[in-house]
Amino acid sequence: VGIVNRRITLAARPVGEPTEADFALVEAPVPELGDGEVLVRTRWLSLDPYQRGRMSSARSYAAPVELGEVITGEAVGEIVESRTRRHSPGELVVGPFGWQEWATARAGSLRAVSGAAPPSTSLHVLGMTGLTAYFGLFDVARPRPGDTVVVSAAAGAVGQVVGQLARMTGCHTVGLASAGKLEDLTETYGYDTAIDYRREDLAAALKAACPHGADVYFDNVGGAVSDAVSRRLAVGARVAVCGLVSQYNLAEPELAPRNLGFLIVSRVRMEGFLVTDYRHRFPEGLGRLQRWVEEGRLTYREDVVEGLEQAPRAFIGLLRGENRGKLLVKVADA
Amino acid sequence: VGIVNRRITLAARPVGEPTEADFALVEAPVPELGDGEVLVRTRWLSLDPYQRGRMSSARSYAAPVELGEVITGEAVGEIVESRTRRHSPGELVVGPFGWQEWATARAGSLRAVSGAAPPSTSLHVLGMTGLTAYFGLFDVARPRPGDTVVVSAAAGAVGQVVGQLARMTGCHTVGLASAGKLEDLTETYGYDTAIDYRREDLAAALKAACPHGADVYFDNVGGAVSDAVSRRLAVGARVAVCGLVSQYNLAEPELAPRNLGFLIVSRVRMEGFLVTDYRHRFPEGLGRLQRWVEEGRLTYREDVVEGLEQAPRAFIGLLRGENRGKLLVKVADA
Repeated sequence: VGIVNRRITLAARPVGEPTEADFALVEAPVPELGDGEVLVRTRWLSLDPYQRGRMSSARSYAAPVELGEVITGEAVGEIVESRTRRHSPGELVVGPFGWQEWATARAGSLRAVSGAAPPSTSLHVLGMTGLTAYFGLFDVARPRPGDTVVVSAAAGAVGQVVGQLARMTGCHTVGLASAGKLEDLTETYGYDTAIDYRREDLAAALKAACPHGADVYFDNVGGAVSDAVSRRLAVGARVAVCGLVSQYNLAEPELAPRNLGFLIVSRVRMEGFLVTDYRHRFPEGLGRLQRWVEEGRLTYREDVVEGLEQAPRAFIGLLRGENRGKLLVKVADA
Repeated sequence: VGIVNRRITLAARPVGEPTEADFALVEAPVPELGDGEVLVRTRWLSLDPYQRGRMSSARSYAAPVELGEVITGEAVGEIVESRTRRHSPGELVVGPFGWQEWATARAGSLRAVSGAAPPSTSLHVLGMTGLTAYFGLFDVARPRPGDTVVVSAAAGAVGQVVGQLARMTGCHTVGLASAGKLEDLTETYGYDTAIDYRREDLAAALKAACPHGADVYFDNVGGAVSDAVSRRLAVGARVAVCGLVSQYNLAEPELAPRNLGFLIVSRVRMEGFLVTDYRHRFPEGLGRLQRWVEEGRLTYREDVVEGLEQAPRAFIGLLRGENRGKLLVKVADA
């Protein structure tokens, strides 16, 4: 193709909160296309807290990004060249393209962008964050009508979908977010109650919002906020552990009082999950999410940053909770 | 009846480890019998770690013992007088008689002692601890043949039964206990591997015993030991949280690094339970436990202390792990 591929690589393993110096913007040749592969021009990057884990060398469920390698992540791209019969130039696809303008990928790693909705939704409500909400809520937390469902990071990419799905299930929904997002919770996502998780009387606010306790806690944050919710769980409550973003930037694990007694006292089931374990059921989840979006029953909010070079700064802000909705980087126009 | 009822009451709420001064041995009249009640002469007391919680005023799943009240607990007693048609003098029954020589109880709170086995087994392998192992293992942890099952306090009243039931299920069993009980684990209870939980290289010992990780962790202790096991859990592991005895004597909650990341990394289900939630299925559990005992497939060990007045000291030792098998106080001979 003869043009330059701008990429963002891992320059250093972040210690604590990442800084822009942990990333490098480098230029490389556009990659060579192999048999069975497509060449993709990146359009949209999905920025997600789990990517912080990839920047660390600690044991996890996926291999870390090596120093000097491109930051991995899901993206929407347009196929520019294809050496597989399964895809043609001009198609928009979702794939593991990473933080770069051009990428090659094998056909088997691609998913078609949903036709009717804007392509960026395939990274959010009609993509991984929507599916995370769908399987985490319905398969792990298993809400019933009448349940009180508490969601942390409730205005975030996953949380905003969880609240709406729980409401559709006939649940009373309580969302935790920072003060500036409380109106989004109740006005946009339909939460019955919105609570500023930083308020000093969080325990009292949770008690008022959940007079009979919380039957479900969908946890995206962990830490002290989750400790407070744990103390309000009803007998038989289920905790779906989706993320622990309050912990991701800690250079050393935080010390906290051991408090697992609530598991016995309230006979709680606490379960961690990964959306990728539900891959065989993505068509089910995507089909329903798409129908609900089309019917206007499920809304979503995107927070779009322009330009590949803005990805590191936007990602640092994501871990601080500065985004308002699903954080996307627009890398190239159509 | 005209004789004296010796009772052990709560003299003070223990702060940290209980001392004998927290208990009082008092004399009271034998209680008056009401309609629908039986008068019982206590034979055996069951001493169990959960009773420590009853001595505290912290919120829990049951009301605390008030100061000056008799210590509550299960016991085997002989009916001496009956004002209900459902029971006759001479019968041995299990009931909530507490730490006293004489008690009255309503017929509905009683369970018959299993006929064939010694009466004390109705407080252990054919009683609450056997049932705790049965429902905690089969309903909460749900082992499959080929699973590696790790049990903490593996030589304790519940742990010794869990190990044998897991072995019957076709599991590889790993028991954690203090050094003096390791032989009991392998020789008496059939654990495949016994590990001293106090050894410095606990992580390495767990790694050697569970090369493919632990699929089930039946936790009776919590704390640092459970942290070590958490790091060895296999993908899809289940943790049945039965007790947290390492924490019961702490005046203030212990500070520890937050470490719940393993729930996501290994997609772990961690679930607390109370045996009393399975009351409707006690006949199922007792029937099977009894058959296995009769067939010689399930063995058990009792640690018997003689005399009601010894109960406080024995209970203090129980929380230190000094007992060897199910701790019982023999209050009166037949």
